[in-house]
Amino acid sequence: MARLRYQQTARSGRARAGLLHTRRGAVRTPAFMPVGTQATVKTLMPEEVAQAGADMILANTYHLSLRPGAEEVAALGGLHRFMAWDGPILTDSGGFQVFSLAANRKLDESGVSFRSHLDGSAMSLGPERAVQAQELLGSDVMMVLDECPPPGADRAYIATALARDARWAARALAARSEGGGALMGIVQGGVYHDLRRRSAELLLELELDGYALGGLSVGEPKEIMMEVIERTVPLVSGAGPVYLMGVGDPADLVRAVGLGVDMFDCVLPTRTARTGALLTARGRMNIKNARYKDDPRPVEPDCQCPTCRRFSRAYLRHLYMAGELLAYRLNTLHNLHFVLGLMERLRQAIAQDRYEEFARGFLAELELGQQ
Amino acid sequence: MARLRYQQTARSGRARAGLLHTRRGAVRTPAFMPVGTQATVKTLMPEEVAQAGADMILANTYHLSLRPGAEEVAALGGLHRFMAWDGPILTDSGGFQVFSLAANRKLDESGVSFRSHLDGSAMSLGPERAVQAQELLGSDVMMVLDECPPPGADRAYIATALARDARWAARALAARSEGGGALMGIVQGGVYHDLRRRSAELLLELELDGYALGGLSVGEPKEIMMEVIERTVPLVSGAGPVYLMGVGDPADLVRAVGLGVDMFDCVLPTRTARTGALLTARGRMNIKNARYKDDPRPVEPDCQCPTCRRFSRAYLRHLYMAGELLAYRLNTLHNLHFVLGLMERLRQAIAQDRYEEFARGFLAELELGQQ
Repeated sequence: MARLRYQQTARSGRARAGLLHTRRGAVRTPAFMPVGTQATVKTLMPEEVAQAGADMILANTYHLSLRPGAEEVAALGGLHRFMAWDGPILTDSGGFQVFSLAANRKLDESGVSFRSHLDGSAMSLGPERAVQAQELLGSDVMMVLDECPPPGADRAYIATALARDARWAARALAARSEGGGALMGIVQGGVYHDLRRRSAELLLELELDGYALGGLSVGEPKEIMMEVIERTVPLVSGAGPVYLMGVGDPADLVRAVGLGVDMFDCVLPTRTARTGALLTARGRMNIKNARYKDDPRPVEPDCQCPTCRRFSRAYLRHLYMAGELLAYRLNTLHNLHFVLGLMERLRQAIAQDRYEEFARGFLAELELGQQ
Repeated sequence: MARLRYQQTARSGRARAGLLHTRRGAVRTPAFMPVGTQATVKTLMPEEVAQAGADMILANTYHLSLRPGAEEVAALGGLHRFMAWDGPILTDSGGFQVFSLAANRKLDESGVSFRSHLDGSAMSLGPERAVQAQELLGSDVMMVLDECPPPGADRAYIATALARDARWAARALAARSEGGGALMGIVQGGVYHDLRRRSAELLLELELDGYALGGLSVGEPKEIMMEVIERTVPLVSGAGPVYLMGVGDPADLVRAVGLGVDMFDCVLPTRTARTGALLTARGRMNIKNARYKDDPRPVEPDCQCPTCRRFSRAYLRHLYMAGELLAYRLNTLHNLHFVLGLMERLRQAIAQDRYEEFARGFLAELELGQQ
């Protein structure tokens, strides 16, 4: 039986809806995965995440390997039991954090050595260990270790990196144990279409369980990002689910779904919530603004989230200004409901073959808010 | 109809159980009121507080008067609507915080002037304004403004203060509007029994809706505190509910219930939770301790709280060490369940006339943990 099976159920233009069958149940796609970096979607209980509409969450192998440790989580029965999340969990390889958080990085064919951002201790990570750590966590969908080229890396650098990425992917696949979860590859290549194609070709030969687009939303212009997505998705969409890593801005989600992306993860809804930024159909609402001091209305009048059903903007502002921990929780609930509700609306629009109409309306409403 | 009616339903020695009928429903006594200082029981949703077993909560008039303001809360429909708590709310007068947090205090017969601890702005509080602010909040059970004598105040100081307290209580009563909530007096007198008696006599003349014991648990030895409670409760217990302010240590709760106290409030369970201290039958568990790193057991094996039902000590320790906000929430849930569960067990023990047996067993178990 396949470790991961993508079943398309509807199509609207290039947008597609379906089910992603994992060993821990099906995930409705297009899917947004809330991020539970340290074995918790910050401030929330697992059932609140599920009730918000999440079928699958993401956990970070780097953070959990440092604290409490992959072996420690395994000894406690695995990540699902540890954090009491029964649904599927996708884990990243740890590579992105090594390349963004860790210090003293040294990269060679074997892998990458670095120092922990927590205590400076010397560590190393190779493709085999990345798989082993994810298996210890009990991951249902694992990602291969790849390099995230530094911003501004040139063509030659990127070409060298993606070739090594493919060799690492082969080693990752060989290292996976019989009972291991699915393993997805990551197409790199920066903004160069021929390099993206080369990366996709090398990875497709390995017959991985699905393919992600990496190295995007790292500072390049939005239109360039969308063009890369548009040209790369068709290269891999016949070979399983397509996952756009690290993208969670509502407008980006809508547009990327229109280009055939099936899966997303991002800290945006949860992280912005903790800064007092609430996602709405008309853009972000800064709840700290004094204009909300006496505002008895919910953040969004038609929102059915636990925050909007009972609490006013004035209350949310009060909690935030008073430094109350409940502020972060109520804001996080709303933002997750907003993004997960958006995915549900996208799935429905695709099922009814009216993706274009929905996307046009959604993006126009967002723009109204920016005027 | 009485604004507050205490109905005794059972007795065991001097301990009594009953119902406190407020305009927003009945409260089972002995009752512990979680503290929602800034219109939130920190980290929790209202329904979590209710599910933990709380019938009534306490809110702080001082904090809410400073931020967002009593008038502002009134304009938003009152505190119940603001924070979405449908049950009864008891508010303090603000006096305790004025005497513990505010700067530049000046006290005279009219009231007390001071500077806000938030922004230094000049403010004043008298018995009439204390009632008005509580009515603006929509309080169901209000407290009269009184002075909290400074630690180490002598007999003469305390005697002068309690006489003024009684005059303030009369003014508070006169200031209460037709639709205002119940109003409770506060028996002061330090550790001097004759002064406590004098304070009680002066307040009883006013026929307030119930009586609290103030100025305890402020540094005096435990045995002295218990002796004051023992001798003061009988003075007022015939005239409504008896409320011991600011006491929430589990052993103190058990002993004070045995002396006839009906109501308690304290930040102890919620505040200690946020420092990583978990309440158990054997005393406090410091979840930061390295010994819990690999401990798969719940905090208390037989606890039915949302934390213990699903999460291990190892997980709680991980969250706390990682600085995750969920740590504060899960710890708070457990501690509130512990204290509110204790009140339920006390009510049952009283109903079955076996308070003494229960108290002996509970206190012996606690002592075992301290060995």
